[in-house]
Amino acid sequence: MTHQEPFDPDIARVAHLLAEAARRAILPLFRSASLSDDNKEDGGYDPVTEADRAAERAMRDILGRERPHDAILGEEYGAEPGTSGLTWVLDPIDGTRGFVSGTPTWGVLIAVSDAAGPFYGIIDQPYIDERFEGTPHGAEVVWQQQRRPLRTRTARDLSEAIVFTTFPEVGSTEEGQAFHAVAQHAKLTRYGMDCYAYALVASGQVDLVIEAGLAAYDIQAPIAVVQAAGGIVTDWQGGPAHEGGRAIAAANAQVHAQALEILKAY
Amino acid sequence: MTHQEPFDPDIARVAHLLAEAARRAILPLFRSASLSDDNKEDGGYDPVTEADRAAERAMRDILGRERPHDAILGEEYGAEPGTSGLTWVLDPIDGTRGFVSGTPTWGVLIAVSDAAGPFYGIIDQPYIDERFEGTPHGAEVVWQQQRRPLRTRTARDLSEAIVFTTFPEVGSTEEGQAFHAVAQHAKLTRYGMDCYAYALVASGQVDLVIEAGLAAYDIQAPIAVVQAAGGIVTDWQGGPAHEGGRAIAAANAQVHAQALEILKAY
Repeated sequence: MTHQEPFDPDIARVAHLLAEAARRAILPLFRSASLSDDNKEDGGYDPVTEADRAAERAMRDILGRERPHDAILGEEYGAEPGTSGLTWVLDPIDGTRGFVSGTPTWGVLIAVSDAAGPFYGIIDQPYIDERFEGTPHGAEVVWQQQRRPLRTRTARDLSEAIVFTTFPEVGSTEEGQAFHAVAQHAKLTRYGMDCYAYALVASGQVDLVIEAGLAAYDIQAPIAVVQAAGGIVTDWQGGPAHEGGRAIAAANAQVHAQALEILKAY
Repeated sequence: MTHQEPFDPDIARVAHLLAEAARRAILPLFRSASLSDDNKEDGGYDPVTEADRAAERAMRDILGRERPHDAILGEEYGAEPGTSGLTWVLDPIDGTRGFVSGTPTWGVLIAVSDAAGPFYGIIDQPYIDERFEGTPHGAEVVWQQQRRPLRTRTARDLSEAIVFTTFPEVGSTEEGQAFHAVAQHAKLTRYGMDCYAYALVASGQVDLVIEAGLAAYDIQAPIAVVQAAGGIVTDWQGGPAHEGGRAIAAANAQVHAQALEILKAY
């Protein structure tokens, strides 16, 4: 299945409006002493903050006005149907654990998908003032008013690769073993960057991100940004990853194939 | 032993000159495709970049002009004696592994110590444009032209605490066990922030950072910043940490005591 063509520039215009609105909602609460977090996961710790909810509401308000025929899928407020065939997929703060810890590597994720999956995405980091964008025409980052194209790394052997994951405890025990089976062949393994790790693949800085237990709203914007920069994102069998679950983002086909060969056994 | 008094404001003036010079040396090389890294550690991966060396040279040049009687201890170019009783302790890029991966949580570390240890420090993050400073008169951060005082978190039980360390594999196997013995009692554990984790303690965002295998230049600036913000930094026995080795940085005396009770067994 292929994406709708041609790309409608109104999508990018509205996406940037959403990203700006999310920044305005979130930044005053980041590192605010008054920020409270609820616990929405029994037995675990998955903070849902005022910032998450305020940002998603602000984005949905804009979509209601600007794109009333599109569907919405958001982390905090769920699914809303549409008639256009397009869905806005929103994660107002990806990396909430990092957010409540004050780390600057959480992000606002905005994707637009059709039946073939996401074809437009933004990973925005408001505190750094850095926005990564992937469109059908390419990918770029704007950092503190400086614009630069994004291009993934050229091919190198897995033994020369830098591999990221969000947690040392990736998904289930078995999934963790699969991650470490790949990581032990790599040059360097790093942890804990949330969605920012995908931005680093798109930026040509790292070769692989391997994760499990994802939701659709966690992975759709990263897919769009990484693919627009020349990378590949699939599940651990090489199939589509945009519904969530297990995902591998790779800088190029070669390192993707090498890692997949190991992951497929799990 | 107590620090020299009163605090000489010329120290802060020169420290900011160093931080600016390091930014100028490092930022053009951060995420630069041409950045090469050497391997200075046999059997491991400890990249030393042009950026490290250029930044330390730039800082040493300024000290030679501005503070010719002070000693210097730097990661890349070693120790240089002085006659004033003061030592500038420099780590041009703390978190080189993060740096070569493109993450924005490495930092330039600048400390000034006397015989009693560090009493002034800067943790600078050039890419975010954020500088944390601790002096005998208090601590503050300047983020993108906005200035704000730093104050560590108020006391809470370890079960409500957020704990950081740089690597899931903290130091030796035994040291890793000690870390996890503390972390399993905490609310949330995060990894991989390099020196930025200490800035988060100073900012009142997290409660504990626990690390091992540190050098003096890794820990002296974090000590000065955390202590100026109201926190405590010691080794795992409660003694001075400024020579390196094992360190625990805590937001307050209560959580420090609780964690130390567990660590002391190791």
